[in-house]
Amino acid sequence: MIIELVDHADHEDAEQLAALLRSRGGSPHIVRWPGRWLILETAQDIDETWLRQLPIVARVVGSTDPHPLSGRKFQSVSTMIEVAGRWIGDGTFLVIAGPCAVESREQLAATAAVVTSAKASMLRGGAFKPRTSPYSFQGLGVRGLELLAEERLRSGLPVVTEAIQPKDVETVAEYADVVQVGARNMQNYALLGEVGRCGRPVLLKRGLAATIQEWLLAAEYVMNAGNPQVMLCERGIRTFETASRFTLDLAAVPIVKRLSHLPIIVDPSHSAGRAFMVPSLTLAAAAAGADGVIVDVHNDPASALCDADQALSSEEFKSTMVDLERVLAVLGRHVA
Amino acid sequence: MIIELVDHADHEDAEQLAALLRSRGGSPHIVRWPGRWLILETAQDIDETWLRQLPIVARVVGSTDPHPLSGRKFQSVSTMIEVAGRWIGDGTFLVIAGPCAVESREQLAATAAVVTSAKASMLRGGAFKPRTSPYSFQGLGVRGLELLAEERLRSGLPVVTEAIQPKDVETVAEYADVVQVGARNMQNYALLGEVGRCGRPVLLKRGLAATIQEWLLAAEYVMNAGNPQVMLCERGIRTFETASRFTLDLAAVPIVKRLSHLPIIVDPSHSAGRAFMVPSLTLAAAAAGADGVIVDVHNDPASALCDADQALSSEEFKSTMVDLERVLAVLGRHVA
Amino acid sequence: MIIELVDHADHEDAEQLAALLRSRGGSPHIVRWPGRWLILETAQDIDETWLRQLPIVARVVGSTDPHPLSGRKFQSVSTMIEVAGRWIGDGTFLVIAGPCAVESREQLAATAAVVTSAKASMLRGGAFKPRTSPYSFQGLGVRGLELLAEERLRSGLPVVTEAIQPKDVETVAEYADVVQVGARNMQNYALLGEVGRCGRPVLLKRGLAATIQEWLLAAEYVMNAGNPQVMLCERGIRTFETASRFTLDLAAVPIVKRLSHLPIIVDPSHSAGRAFMVPSLTLAAAAAGADGVIVDVHNDPASALCDADQALSSEEFKSTMVDLERVLAVLGRHVA
Amino acid sequence: MIIELVDHADHEDAEQLAALLRSRGGSPHIVRWPGRWLILETAQDIDETWLRQLPIVARVVGSTDPHPLSGRKFQSVSTMIEVAGRWIGDGTFLVIAGPCAVESREQLAATAAVVTSAKASMLRGGAFKPRTSPYSFQGLGVRGLELLAEERLRSGLPVVTEAIQPKDVETVAEYADVVQVGARNMQNYALLGEVGRCGRPVLLKRGLAATIQEWLLAAEYVMNAGNPQVMLCERGIRTFETASRFTLDLAAVPIVKRLSHLPIIVDPSHSAGRAFMVPSLTLAAAAAGADGVIVDVHNDPASALCDADQALSSEEFKSTMVDLERVLAVLGRHVA
Repeated sequence: MIIELVDHADHEDAEQLAALLRSRGGSPHIVRWPGRWLILETAQDIDETWLRQLPIVARVVGSTDPHPLSGRKFQSVSTMIEVAGRWIGDGTFLVIAGPCAVESREQLAATAAVVTSAKASMLRGGAFKPRTSPYSFQGLGVRGLELLAEERLRSGLPVVTEAIQPKDVETVAEYADVVQVGARNMQNYALLGEVGRCGRPVLLKRGLAATIQEWLLAAEYVMNAGNPQVMLCERGIRTFETASRFTLDLAAVPIVKRLSHLPIIVDPSHSAGRAFMVPSLTLAAAAAGADGVIVDVHNDPASALCDADQALSSEEFKSTMVDLERVLAVLGRHVA
Repeated sequence: MIIELVDHADHEDAEQLAALLRSRGGSPHIVRWPGRWLILETAQDIDETWLRQLPIVARVVGSTDPHPLSGRKFQSVSTMIEVAGRWIGDGTFLVIAGPCAVESREQLAATAAVVTSAKASMLRGGAFKPRTSPYSFQGLGVRGLELLAEERLRSGLPVVTEAIQPKDVETVAEYADVVQVGARNMQNYALLGEVGRCGRPVLLKRGLAATIQEWLLAAEYVMNAGNPQVMLCERGIRTFETASRFTLDLAAVPIVKRLSHLPIIVDPSHSAGRAFMVPSLTLAAAAAGADGVIVDVHNDPASALCDADQALSSEEFKSTMVDLERVLAVLGRHVA
Repeated sequence: MIIELVDHADHEDAEQLAALLRSRGGSPHIVRWPGRWLILETAQDIDETWLRQLPIVARVVGSTDPHPLSGRKFQSVSTMIEVAGRWIGDGTFLVIAGPCAVESREQLAATAAVVTSAKASMLRGGAFKPRTSPYSFQGLGVRGLELLAEERLRSGLPVVTEAIQPKDVETVAEYADVVQVGARNMQNYALLGEVGRCGRPVLLKRGLAATIQEWLLAAEYVMNAGNPQVMLCERGIRTFETASRFTLDLAAVPIVKRLSHLPIIVDPSHSAGRAFMVPSLTLAAAAAGADGVIVDVHNDPASALCDADQALSSEEFKSTMVDLERVLAVLGRHVA
Repeated sequence: MIIELVDHADHEDAEQLAALLRSRGGSPHIVRWPGRWLILETAQDIDETWLRQLPIVARVVGSTDPHPLSGRKFQSVSTMIEVAGRWIGDGTFLVIAGPCAVESREQLAATAAVVTSAKASMLRGGAFKPRTSPYSFQGLGVRGLELLAEERLRSGLPVVTEAIQPKDVETVAEYADVVQVGARNMQNYALLGEVGRCGRPVLLKRGLAATIQEWLLAAEYVMNAGNPQVMLCERGIRTFETASRFTLDLAAVPIVKRLSHLPIIVDPSHSAGRAFMVPSLTLAAAAAGADGVIVDVHNDPASALCDADQALSSEEFKSTMVDLERVLAVLGRHVA
C-alpha cells in the first residue's frame, strides 16, 4: 500500500510513522515525492483503518501492483510532464529527433535546422555513447554536452541526451532538458537512483531483454528516489528475427497505458536499424496511441559516425512528419 | 534466374527446355504459372544471352532472391488478388473479421451481422482448429464448413477458413473463398503444395518462430506449385515477453513490402491474446502500411469456445472500424 | 482423470462408459492403449468413488496434468521402448548416428560402417527431407527408404527416418524401425495422429519455438491415438544467439524426466549447426541424464548434400564415442 | 593489430608510438598490460613490416578479431588465473558455492561448512544485490563484505562477490578474491572499466540478451583497462521457455573455447531457477568442457532471502560433488 502524508508533514514525521510500521511487522520505504512524503508498505497485514485515522496520513492507496508508484492504482490520471514549455502526455505527441551521436557543431546545427523546419518538438544527440566495443567511437563527452547546450540556445529546441554512469548524471542534467537512460542501463540501479535525484525528466529506454513489468520496476527505481517525471521508451526487444535490428513491441503501448500512468515514447530507429522502416513504424506508433517518438535524423546519414544505416535524411524526415501530422489529426492529436 | 516461356508454349516445351538446361549443368524447376510456363534455374553459370535467343523464351529475369517467385525482381508491381469482387493489395484495406471457431449457426449469424454492419470485408471462422492439446475443442469440421457456406450465402460475405491437413484442402477450397494456412503449419510442405494447387487465394500465416525469409520461402512453396495468389499474414512471433501472447512484428510490413510483391495482412488478435490491445494494433497495422487485418470478433466473447480473451465484442469492433476508416482516409485508402 | 478399463473390456464397453460419463456432464475421450482401453475425462466434477465401483473399471488415476498419458501421475516408472532388441530408457544410452540425408548406396554403406565400428546403436538418414526452400535437395524419397532397408539388412543396424506427411507414414513405418517427426512438424496434428497409429516407436523432435509443455502435448497426440512408444528429442530452440544454429536446451532433460515417463534423446548436431561443438554437447547430454543422442555423421562431411557443416567425420565420431563410453561408465550406464 | 612493446618500454614510449601511428592515419589505443605496454590499432592500412623494425616493438599480432585481447590470435594458450593458490583454467575445475545473498554470520558459517566439507573451491555470497524491484531485499552491503572476509579467514575459502556500481569496486576488491560483474551489468561500461583497474580476477556474467560476441567485447572492456584476469560466466539467456528461469546455453562452452583463451564458468543455478535441475546441469557443464561452475547452496534453502527455489541443500550439493568428481576424473580433471 501507499501511504500519503499530509502536506505539512516533514521527513521526521515520515520516519516516525515508518518506525511505527516496523514495530507492527511492516517493511516501510520512505519516498520524497514532490510536495509531500509517501511511505510504501509491502507488508500485507497492516491495518488500513488504523492508518487512515492517523492525523498525519492524508490518503492510503491499497495498491498491490509490484510497481506501486508507476501503477494506475496510485494515480489513475495519466502523468503529464513539462519540458521547456511543451507538455508531454496530455494528448499532444512528442517528436524528438536528431543524430545518434553529436559529432561536431556543424553537424548538430545542420541537423537541428532540419528538426526545426520539420516542426519536431525536441533535439536528441548522444554525447556519452555506450558502445558494444571499446574500440568504437565513444562520443564527444562533455564537449558534446556543450555543443548541445549551444545548439539549444541557438535553436530554442529542448535537448535530450544520455547519461551512462552515475557520476555523469549531475553534469548531464545541467546541460540537458531530459536525461536519457539507455537500454543497456535499464537495470543499472545506481544510475537509476542518480537520475531519480537529478530533478530532470527522464527518458527510460526498455532493456532489450526486459519484460514490461521489469521496465516498470526500473521506472519505480527512478520514482522511488523522488522523481515522478519518467517517460518510458519502447525501442525494440531482442528476438530471433534479424531482418530488423530488434523487434519493436508496439503492444507495449496499450499494455503500458493500462498498467501505468506514465507516458510512453517509441523509438522506431534503433528497433529497425535501417531507415526504410522508420516512416512506417513512426506512423504505427502514433496510431497505436504512443505519446511520442524519438527518431534518428542526420544531415548526412551516409557519413554518420554511429548507426548510419538507421538515420533518416532531411527529406525523409520531413515527409514522415507530414504523414504523421495527418494521422495524428484524425486521432484528435498534434505534434507538441 | 526465372525463365518465362512464350504464351503458346506448353508443358512439353517446358520439359524440353528443362532437359536442355540439365544437359548444361542446370537444376531447372518447372512451374505452371497462370497463363504461362516458368522455369526456375538456380545454377549460376547458365548463359543468359543464349537463353534469351531461344524462340520459346519470352523473358529471363536474373533474380538471385532465395524466393524468386515472391521477390520484387521477378515482379516489381504489387500483386492484387480478387476475392468475390473485392480487390486486395491495390490500396484498399481488407478487414477480415469473425469468430476464432465456428460454434453454431446462431453464433455465426450473430457475428456475421456485426461484421456486415461494421462494413468489414470478409468473414473468418475456423471449422478445423489446430489445438495445442488433443483434449481441447477441435472445431466442427465439415459441419463448420457447411455453416460458413450457409452464412456466406445469407450475408454475402466472402469466407476465410483454415485447412489443417493436405487431404482437407480440396473440401475447404470448395466452401471457402480464401484458404488459410495457420502458423503451426507454415512449414507443413505437403499442405503448402496442396493449397498451391487448390485454385483459391491463400492466407499464409507466419510461423511463430519463422524469420521473414523463411516465411517468404513458405510462400514460394505455394507459388511454386502454381498458385500466385498468396496473402502473407503477420500474427506475432514468440519471444520472452508474456504480457502479450506473441510479439506482433510490425516491421515485417515494410520489410515484406520491400522484398516481395505479395500483400501482407496483420492479425492483431492472435498476437495480442487479449482484446484490449486489438484496437491499438489494428490502427497501427493500417498506419504501418499493411494491406489488411484479420480480427477475432464474437457476438458474445465471454462464451467463446476458443481464444475467448482476444475476441472483440460487437461494440468494440464497430468503434475500432470507425477509427480505422479515419486513419485509412488520411493515408488515401479505405476498407475494401 | 484417466479411467483404465479391465483387461477383458472391449470397445463397446468403452463406448458405453463414455456415454454414461457424457450423461453426467463429462467430456470423455476413448484411447486404445496396448492391451486395454482407457478413457480420459477432463471434466473435474465426475465422482471418482462411483467410477471405482464399476466392474468394468480397473483403475482411476486422478491426474490433472495437461498431458495425462505422458505424465508421471499416470505412469510413475519410466517408459522403456524396444527397438530391434535394444531397450531404450532403462539406463542404457542410445546413440543414433548417420547422415542428415540418404544420398546414395555408397554413402550410406560407408557411413553405416563408421556407425557400426564406433559401436553406435542405430542408423539415421533422411529419405524425405523437409527443406526451408523448395529449390533445395528434397531427399531421395522412397528410393532413400529402400537404400535404408538394404543397409539395415546388410549391417544389422536398426533404422530411424522421418515421415513428413500423413500419407507417407505407412510406407515409412514399413521400412523403418523408428519413425521420426521433425521439428517443423511437431504441431502437424494429422501427422501425429498417423504416427500414433503406425505401430512403430516414434522419435518426436521438439519444435523450434515449442515450450516443453507444448512438446508433451504433441506427444499426447501420438499417445492419444494409441501409440505409447514415444521418444522425445531435444534439438535446440530458436533464440537471438547466432553463434550456434539453435540453442540446445539441456534443462529440458531434467524437466522432462520430472514431468513425464517418456525417454528423452538429444540432437547436438542440429542444435549446434557446426561440427566442432558436437562432441562437447554429446558428453553434456549424457551427463545431464538424457537417454541418448542422435548425431549427424558423414563418411565425407565436405561433400554432404544437406547440413554439411554439422556432420562429424568418422574420426571425430569414433573419438567422441570413446569419451562418451567413459562418461557413461562412471554414471553406471553404457551405450545400448 | 596488437603491437606489443619490449619489456623496458614505458608509458612515454607507448605515447610516442601512438602519436606516430596517428600521424600515419591510425587509431591507436594504449593498454597497460601486466609487465608490458600494448597498442591496439584498428586501422587496416598500417605497414606491419615497418612496425616490426622499430626497436621499441617486441611483437606485432595481426588479429582481426573484434575482441583482440580476448581472442586466440593474440594468445593461443588458454589463460590461467590464480586465486588464493588455486589455478583456474589449467585443467582443474573450479567449484564456487554459497548462498545467493549473505544474510547473517550464522547462515554464512553454516553454508561455508557445507562448501568446505564438500571440497568445493571457493565461497560465493552477494553483499550488494541487484534486484529487479526496489522493494526487494538489497543485500547487507558493506556489512555483508565484512561477514565474507571474516568467513574467509575462518574457513580459508577464497571469496567471490559482486560489485554493482563503479564506486563500490575498490571496496569490494579489498574484501574479495574475485570481483563478480552480474548479468544486468555486462554492458555497464563504467563498472567494467573499474573492475579492469581493480587488480583482482573478475567473474563476468553473460548478459541475459547478450550474444557471445557482445560478451567477449564486454571482457575486452575489462582487459583493455589493464586486467587480463577475466573468467567468463555463462548463466543462461532469456528465451520464450518458462519451465526454466533462463535457458542455459552450453554451446557457449565450446564456442568460447574456440574464440577466446579466457576460462569459462557455468552457473546452473541462476539459469535453472529451480534446484532440481542443478545437479544435471552441473555435470553437463563439466562434460561440456567448462572450467568450473558457480552454484547456489544454502544451509536452509527454504528460508533463503533471495532465490530460495534454486539453492541446493547441503545433501544435494554433497551428492552432486561426488558425481561431479567421478565425471571429471574420466575426463582427466579434478576439482581445484
